[in-house]
Amino acid sequence: MEPQFRQIPGSIVAPRGFLASGVFCNIKRIGTGKGSDRGRKRDLALIVSEVPATVAGMFTTNQICAPPVRLCVERVRAGAAQALVVNSGNANACTGKQGMKDALAMTACTAKELHLPATHVLVASTGRIGVALPMDNVRAGIRQAAHLLGKAPAHAAETVEAIMTSDTQSKQIAVEFQLGDQPVRIGGICKGAGMIQPGLSASGERPPARPLHATMLCFLSTDAAIQHAPLQAALQEAVAESFNRITVDGDMSTNDTVLILANGLADNRVLRLRTSDFGLFQAALSHVCLELARMIVRDGEGATRFVTVRVTGARTCLEADAAARAVANSALVKTSWCGGDPNWGRIIDALGYSRARIVEEKVDIGYSAPGSRRILWSLKRGQPAQAAFERLCATVALKEFDLHINLNLGPADTLIYAADLTEEYVDFNKGDVSDPSSLGG
Amino acid sequence: MEPQFRQIPGSIVAPRGFLASGVFCNIKRIGTGKGSDRGRKRDLALIVSEVPATVAGMFTTNQICAPPVRLCVERVRAGAAQALVVNSGNANACTGKQGMKDALAMTACTAKELHLPATHVLVASTGRIGVALPMDNVRAGIRQAAHLLGKAPAHAAETVEAIMTSDTQSKQIAVEFQLGDQPVRIGGICKGAGMIQPGLSASGERPPARPLHATMLCFLSTDAAIQHAPLQAALQEAVAESFNRITVDGDMSTNDTVLILANGLADNRVLRLRTSDFGLFQAALSHVCLELARMIVRDGEGATRFVTVRVTGARTCLEADAAARAVANSALVKTSWCGGDPNWGRIIDALGYSRARIVEEKVDIGYSAPGSRRILWSLKRGQPAQAAFERLCATVALKEFDLHINLNLGPADTLIYAADLTEEYVDFNKGDVSDPSSLGG
Repeated sequence: MEPQFRQIPGSIVAPRGFLASGVFCNIKRIGTGKGSDRGRKRDLALIVSEVPATVAGMFTTNQICAPPVRLCVERVRAGAAQALVVNSGNANACTGKQGMKDALAMTACTAKELHLPATHVLVASTGRIGVALPMDNVRAGIRQAAHLLGKAPAHAAETVEAIMTSDTQSKQIAVEFQLGDQPVRIGGICKGAGMIQPGLSASGERPPARPLHATMLCFLSTDAAIQHAPLQAALQEAVAESFNRITVDGDMSTNDTVLILANGLADNRVLRLRTSDFGLFQAALSHVCLELARMIVRDGEGATRFVTVRVTGARTCLEADAAARAVANSALVKTSWCGGDPNWGRIIDALGYSRARIVEEKVDIGYSAPGSRRILWSLKRGQPAQAAFERLCATVALKEFDLHINLNLGPADTLIYAADLTEEYVDFNKGDVSDPSSLGG
Repeated sequence: MEPQFRQIPGSIVAPRGFLASGVFCNIKRIGTGKGSDRGRKRDLALIVSEVPATVAGMFTTNQICAPPVRLCVERVRAGAAQALVVNSGNANACTGKQGMKDALAMTACTAKELHLPATHVLVASTGRIGVALPMDNVRAGIRQAAHLLGKAPAHAAETVEAIMTSDTQSKQIAVEFQLGDQPVRIGGICKGAGMIQPGLSASGERPPARPLHATMLCFLSTDAAIQHAPLQAALQEAVAESFNRITVDGDMSTNDTVLILANGLADNRVLRLRTSDFGLFQAALSHVCLELARMIVRDGEGATRFVTVRVTGARTCLEADAAARAVANSALVKTSWCGGDPNWGRIIDALGYSRARIVEEKVDIGYSAPGSRRILWSLKRGQPAQAAFERLCATVALKEFDLHINLNLGPADTLIYAADLTEEYVDFNKGDVSDPSSLGG
């Protein structure tokens, strides 16, 4: 199917009626070790709809769940919101009762500046764990941001900068497509580079026997007219195939959050489940989420490789997922990618200790260029295959390649987007012990 | 309780009636990339009892299980053996039907040289995965080793060298204790530095809902008189508290093997379960296994820290284990250890995504010198505690320290011995793509 949507500029402010801003209010400097070396980076953002919007969200399933996440879970359930306040540099996680007070105060301050009910304001935080927010700075930032709201691409760019932590690239996208006579837009921004293996659910509660798995934050805006339940369904589907399929280091954060606001200003016929219009909306939203999720892995801390681990032939979906994650999170496999080594021994070893059923004599392992069906097999039915070593090396030397694993045991398949493990990752995360405020995060 | 055993020289040949040898037969050079840079290292070992011995074993629970392991599982079940042949440089794993033929041929060749029945010979291999053994070299090595058998400490030292791969230190120990009037001895050697998170069971079959977790090999000898069933019980208990509690990189190998031969030459009264003599034997065997297991973690690839992760207050033993392993295998926690950073945010994050039940407001996290009860708490009941930052840094700067985690939810506790994640680990494991034979391992 040809994509029926086209990319447009403006990301989060591309849909009608959305405004945003990003400012510096000295959170990144206070309470972080490395921030002071990084210069004056924006650290507080507002995203606002001119009219009340339908809202949906997906949240970390980590049992240690930051106060802003707990507050959003509650407010998203109500189904409507109009503004979102976000800070970087401090996760407001493991901050006890003060943490929830501060999250509430952030939404109250934003509501006051924007003349909205506080319950229509959502909040997210990312950065250090275990340090109280510098609330005077935060309040000053919110006031400043409220005055600077705008809808130019430059506003979106400043908003993205304000949510970044260890990111080296800004991550944003917007698409436009037709619903009937109306052009509809979806925009999105996200952040995340380390502590990345999200496992998001709608309630923040962990589904039984589901895979467990940074802080990643993603904020989406659309001018589509859609009610809460179908919007939540569409977001859940989009996240399942995007953010819940990425891993940088296998660590799931306490703050992972995906939020979408739909303000209806496109004036399309209200979207209903199981209609072709809903299908179009779903396809566009899934595309936006997948592109953003892939940007996170490409910008993974220290990453030099983007590997799509494709597992087929598993007995069940859960086993396919277990097999793919065992490989994608194996320290030995990830270091071999860093070295450009088309190793299959470490891969079959990781499959063998995964929770998935594996039969050595049935396993195929191969490599290809991204999305290509021309697979160079290095193992077929458990036996070393005949692919020329130089060609295998040339494929694995690519910055992006696909790893194909066929277990040949059943009908289930999956894919996981993964990064390699490099010396730069270790160096970056060794920590800065010169600063006591680095204790938490 | 005072230890009722004392350390003696000779390791594997310290008990009466045991002979050993280690030779070079050009396995490490053939089929390995880095071997050629390493000079001429011994790569084939024999360990032999002068009389038939009782045998017990514990084996990898990886579903990809090398032919020598499968052969040993079968022969250990029969309960008796007299010799063991081991090679390094090639794991004889993922080698198909040829692999089992080669494992059988190794035991047959050893049996012929030593004039034993082949079923009384055990076999183990470690090194590259997926490359056929150079059997002409192996046979020449076995003949040479059979002629060089001896029981001097130098013989033990050569035997240890012959089982090493990426190890930088030789790992051996022996103890002596009294059973009645008879001095009884237990000796042991082991190897392992990467692909280390064993999960060993007696049958090689994975117990349901048990933690899953390089190649590590451990060979033990004793002159105690004991039958197969109590010997297996004692080994199982010793391994549960030692090799099954270590992790270097979280990767479980296809070849992990622990074997013990008990030849009865101490002439003690035959050991029976639930006697005080059995208790003494168990204590000595557990001590030997624990010391050897700790040597593996200390010599972990690139490791600069030895951390004992002590979890208390979990609801169940399985949850205690899940909590400890989530922390001990978190890339972000392990890099913070490398940096000497007394971080608790990454630790509580890892606890939160583990399979263990965690309540943020109940979690205590602290640090101490190894085995010390003077714990510096950095988190108490989910709140940052008052330990002075410099003192925390001083503790975590130690090459060895204990990490204390109290979940305060129940009666279960455990401990895991873990290494940090360093740039040297990544550099060592990036692989050597100049050599096609490096494809497998």
